[in-house]
Amino acid sequence: MSDTRRRLLDALAAADGPVSGPELADRLGVSRAAVWKQVEALREAGFDVASDAAGYAVRGVPDYGADAIAYGLDAPYAVEYHDRLPSTNDRARELAVEGATDHVVVAGEQTGGRGRLDRPWSSPPGGVYASLLVRPDRPPAHVPVFTLAAAVAVTRACREAGVDAVIKWPNDVLLAESERKLAGVLTEMEGEADRVSWLIVGVGANVDVAAEALPETATSVRAAGGVADRRRFCQRVIEAFHGLDPEATLPAWRDHAVTLGREVRVETPGGVVEGEAVDVEFPGALVVRTDDGDRVVHAGDCEHLRPA
Amino acid sequence: MSDTRRRLLDALAAADGPVSGPELADRLGVSRAAVWKQVEALREAGFDVASDAAGYAVRGVPDYGADAIAYGLDAPYAVEYHDRLPSTNDRARELAVEGATDHVVVAGEQTGGRGRLDRPWSSPPGGVYASLLVRPDRPPAHVPVFTLAAAVAVTRACREAGVDAVIKWPNDVLLAESERKLAGVLTEMEGEADRVSWLIVGVGANVDVAAEALPETATSVRAAGGVADRRRFCQRVIEAFHGLDPEATLPAWRDHAVTLGREVRVETPGGVVEGEAVDVEFPGALVVRTDDGDRVVHAGDCEHLRPA
Repeated sequence: MSDTRRRLLDALAAADGPVSGPELADRLGVSRAAVWKQVEALREAGFDVASDAAGYAVRGVPDYGADAIAYGLDAPYAVEYHDRLPSTNDRARELAVEGATDHVVVAGEQTGGRGRLDRPWSSPPGGVYASLLVRPDRPPAHVPVFTLAAAVAVTRACREAGVDAVIKWPNDVLLAESERKLAGVLTEMEGEADRVSWLIVGVGANVDVAAEALPETATSVRAAGGVADRRRFCQRVIEAFHGLDPEATLPAWRDHAVTLGREVRVETPGGVVEGEAVDVEFPGALVVRTDDGDRVVHAGDCEHLRPA
Repeated sequence: MSDTRRRLLDALAAADGPVSGPELADRLGVSRAAVWKQVEALREAGFDVASDAAGYAVRGVPDYGADAIAYGLDAPYAVEYHDRLPSTNDRARELAVEGATDHVVVAGEQTGGRGRLDRPWSSPPGGVYASLLVRPDRPPAHVPVFTLAAAVAVTRACREAGVDAVIKWPNDVLLAESERKLAGVLTEMEGEADRVSWLIVGVGANVDVAAEALPETATSVRAAGGVADRRRFCQRVIEAFHGLDPEATLPAWRDHAVTLGREVRVETPGGVVEGEAVDVEFPGALVVRTDDGDRVVHAGDCEHLRPA
């Protein structure tokens, strides 16, 4: 999306009423003809833009797409949309290699969606598949906190949609009632030993998807009776992620987590750790109270054990 | 290098005396003609291979190159050699993307050698420029320990060459007497939040280089009066790195470090930390005793302060 287009969208979204062509041309530093051309492009993209003597006013926004997501988006990210991609993370990686940053890649569906450890991630139409590309000035050791931040962002978006979502360590977003999966996060990165070069946080969220289209263990915002608005959901995820700095993430994560206080079984590269999950430590490690004392788990598959 | 070629090199290196063609063919599971063909190839590569009724015996090995480094190498790494490369890390990255692992890329010189944070790294002919590609089952948080392991490996290779080398946190190898730089390590990686996909540890060591060819702040094994044998040096670095598991690395690093006990000034992303360096913590953080208590520094540029 051109910078002019994005700034036009921001100007129209911020306006209380109609904005005149000359004023827009002035604010965007382009000709009135250029403004008119961009407005026409928005109309072709599905926007209902009224124009009268008073100026231009947006009366309707399309359901989804780059312009729809950018319209009213309160975060400085360029938005790229594809109806279908093999994987939004893979596309974001291409942009990373080209040097891009603060970029969001969104797809209507994924044909090769991946979860952690190359596991397949069901990505039917109706889901929100978004990969955020950022370049934080942090060492790789801090990367897990960005995964937790994404889980918090998705949980907030779910709750705003009226669904009681909770986080299972480290980054699964579950429906509280059934503990079925609403969303997951796949974080990928490249860097030196002490500096991240690029970081991609991929979100796969079951929003406007029928339960039948999902695996047994999953559910969706729609199936849970929530407001299945992909555009708003995607915007809220981006804004919430952008608004969470690493220091603020852990307290927010604790507020939304269902894992703390639970008996858990974590399969780590170093073996199985079983006990009560008592806390999460920076950058995202789980503290498990075992019979042999507290264990700090940095990575692994976490299972909530039901009380016997 | 073909697998047969490598196994032939291993068989010849392990033999006390001549090994017969039939025996080699038997051990390698190839025809006697194939053995003969490989032996001819070794001769073309500069090996002096004697052959008589008793069999084949290596009498001379070329100074440097893939076969020379692989001959007698006691570590399971494939060796790739180039007289000149822009950057051995960049070539290793290509191999990583192709799915390779346990691979060493060696160059006679680098035309675009890089140090940490994209700083240029002087890479004239005579240096040892080697990038090790591995895929440890570890989270990115553990990556710094591999950088420390490489620094230990290089330091051991320097000492075996008769040069009193020490490590400055985190990974600079210095000549103890002058604290001029003998070698550096550049670690690069890609992975998920909780799993490294590939890890490249690049070593740039001033071995058979004249001091005049180096920056003011650097010196070389040769200039320091050591044995400037690139082949042996490269082999020892690879073997020592391979032999150091993460748990054994910190004690070894402490043994070789000059930073501990010194007054240091570390420029970190979060600001300057000044005080006495008292220890190193897993995965490679420096503990600095400041006026406001101990600070744990994960990344930064470390300067040794001379006593006032």
